[in-house]
Amino acid sequence: MRAALINTGTELLLGDVQDAHLAFIAREIFPLGLRIEERRTVPDTDAIRRTLAELLPRCEILFVTGGLGPTGDDITREMVADVLGLELRQDPELLSSLRQRLQLRGIKWAAGIARQADVPAGAQVLSNENGSAPGLYLKANINPRTPSPHLFVLPGPPRELQPMFRKFVTPILRSIVPSPALEKRIYKIAGIGESVVEEAIGEKVLAIPGIELGYCARPGEVEVRILGEAQAIEQADGIVRSALGPSIFSTSEETLEEVVVKLLTNYNQTFASAESCTGGLIANRITNVPGASRVFVAGYVCYANQAKTDMLNIDPKLIETHGAVSEPVARALAEDARACARSDYALSTTGIAGPTGGSPEKPVGTVYIALASADSDMIVKKFFFPTDRETFKQLAAQTALDLLRRKILKSAARHSERSRVTS
Amino acid sequence: MRAALINTGTELLLGDVQDAHLAFIAREIFPLGLRIEERRTVPDTDAIRRTLAELLPRCEILFVTGGLGPTGDDITREMVADVLGLELRQDPELLSSLRQRLQLRGIKWAAGIARQADVPAGAQVLSNENGSAPGLYLKANINPRTPSPHLFVLPGPPRELQPMFRKFVTPILRSIVPSPALEKRIYKIAGIGESVVEEAIGEKVLAIPGIELGYCARPGEVEVRILGEAQAIEQADGIVRSALGPSIFSTSEETLEEVVVKLLTNYNQTFASAESCTGGLIANRITNVPGASRVFVAGYVCYANQAKTDMLNIDPKLIETHGAVSEPVARALAEDARACARSDYALSTTGIAGPTGGSPEKPVGTVYIALASADSDMIVKKFFFPTDRETFKQLAAQTALDLLRRKILKSAARHSERSRVTS
Repeated sequence: MRAALINTGTELLLGDVQDAHLAFIAREIFPLGLRIEERRTVPDTDAIRRTLAELLPRCEILFVTGGLGPTGDDITREMVADVLGLELRQDPELLSSLRQRLQLRGIKWAAGIARQADVPAGAQVLSNENGSAPGLYLKANINPRTPSPHLFVLPGPPRELQPMFRKFVTPILRSIVPSPALEKRIYKIAGIGESVVEEAIGEKVLAIPGIELGYCARPGEVEVRILGEAQAIEQADGIVRSALGPSIFSTSEETLEEVVVKLLTNYNQTFASAESCTGGLIANRITNVPGASRVFVAGYVCYANQAKTDMLNIDPKLIETHGAVSEPVARALAEDARACARSDYALSTTGIAGPTGGSPEKPVGTVYIALASADSDMIVKKFFFPTDRETFKQLAAQTALDLLRRKILKSAARHSERSRVTS
Repeated sequence: MRAALINTGTELLLGDVQDAHLAFIAREIFPLGLRIEERRTVPDTDAIRRTLAELLPRCEILFVTGGLGPTGDDITREMVADVLGLELRQDPELLSSLRQRLQLRGIKWAAGIARQADVPAGAQVLSNENGSAPGLYLKANINPRTPSPHLFVLPGPPRELQPMFRKFVTPILRSIVPSPALEKRIYKIAGIGESVVEEAIGEKVLAIPGIELGYCARPGEVEVRILGEAQAIEQADGIVRSALGPSIFSTSEETLEEVVVKLLTNYNQTFASAESCTGGLIANRITNVPGASRVFVAGYVCYANQAKTDMLNIDPKLIETHGAVSEPVARALAEDARACARSDYALSTTGIAGPTGGSPEKPVGTVYIALASADSDMIVKKFFFPTDRETFKQLAAQTALDLLRRKILKSAARHSERSRVTS
């Protein structure tokens, strides 16, 4: 089935906002055997109407994003109804849930808001759990007089579109497309780079007939995707697992912080952080995970040297002798954070994020990461991430969380080994 | 003049690569008074030919990116020549510079490479200083029998396209477009919602002839864009500033945290945070800003109740009596953080991020934010953000940072008022 995508939004064509929908939707529909065959980006003008009219007869599935909000430049809903010759009717249930939503938040009612409760006759409402504008599904040939494809009209903000897509659009797509022949596996990998990953698995995996292999690199993380028929996938899976084993932190969409919270929860352990150069990023990532409160005790963002002494009793002489960015200070931060928070583990980071503050001995990008644990087996490692400030923070936080992940697994393995020996 | 963009590349439509060309080109051409009026993304198939044929009569300037390399799926050059009815001729100079380039890098000559020296008759070669495939400029109506716009054919990798665009394309554009007429202003707004913003300015701004007005909402933030001729822009600017004054935190691309760091730096003041429900997000955002170390002293991520007592000496009885999510605890957290960190300001957050942990009195989404300052004029406010966990954290952090921004400005105004009175 041919699928197409229309992104509406003047801000996209002015370069003020980068589109994220094409990549998201393409990846979501791939396992169903669907691909976007054309994408068009148009401004919030009559161009929407013209583009709809041109693409309707050319595809069997059409996604349209953006322009569903309450302001005057949000005109997608009206254009869709117009092109398909459908009447817009106010949905009383939607209207009252909009009123409720605003009331709950103490936001004043404004004139344009009610337009978000308008629904083209016969369309199915896809409720928006993260915003006010609902999505719409209009089945193929919804108006018998106007041939049209299956049409999905979705909100512009990715944080609204993405959960809506997974919850409502994918199940509808499953019911309208023939069952796919391809399977897909993903592997999320930390601690090694993209080219090392490719060297480890690339040739061997691509030697399997019918396998497609893709890589996607993010700071401190490589995602490997394999696509193919069931038997080929099993063969490739064996190769990937034996080559990359302990570096694979997930084979689903989980983040590294979700994996760490799950492991700590499973083993009933707790964790604290003492962050200098990562400035709270580790704490922030961990507390993004629901249930983090069971395992995360305290985060010390000791940015200034004074704070290292005030918050965690770091001896000022230690800082004076070795510098704040040093192995002894990283070690002391992790040790003291673990003691102060009375947690099982504590991670610390201290480094030079830049753009200034570097020296010939300790250039921008230098970072020490330490991990203190109950078994008094302290880990301190030095890394060098010469890049921009935010990527530096991401790399340091990712590396720290991966150290913790590997340590928890190792301790658990050692523990179960010991139990086996004793029993 | 109407401009359009065609991005070619199957990898874009599979979601493996994110397009960066639209945003780059849009921003480059805006100062010339040009806008991309439509962008199409198509795979490396015959779709390129069809799309060229459709767009040629619709625009005066057309950019085409990608598909100029040496491999079999690079077919853009051939499609362009074919649609315009131009012969492809091998350029001997290009061929020898390609040979030289490869030799220099020790790369073996392969069959497809010579295709990159093929040039449609009459086209101008734009040399590629960062890769092998040159760009092409075909002036309007290059083949008198086929009406066509000014056509720029550019390589796919951004690191090749961008320098080529600035060095060759922009000067050519300058020579073919009349001098620019449009100006653009943006306003970044915190503390009020999108529909309230529209109610405050929408009608009045749109009453100015020739003004375009757009909105873009992000968690806790609304961006307003106005476009128009200089005089109209000045008039609209007056309306926006008088209606939204103190809610505008920036008129450039700055983030709220950048504005806060700049203000604190200017007034030589410092800041600390005590974060329960935002879990380090405030500290993380602030430390993303270069120079944050001058103003940010310490961040207490006191996630567990025990940590509130251990890190900031919060009386356990206070938590027992009022609950951790309460006005007195928010107040105590801010007060104690300011005292412990010896900073000028301290922000605190305590709330229920969800998805669990709510109660009928304090449902998920409840949050107290407090701001302690030197003038002992404590601010404590209750908010309600019933949404997903990450958006809740963003809204709470954004609201807290905006409270701080407004407070710094108010104190500075009062201070300068007092100096005026005294002097």
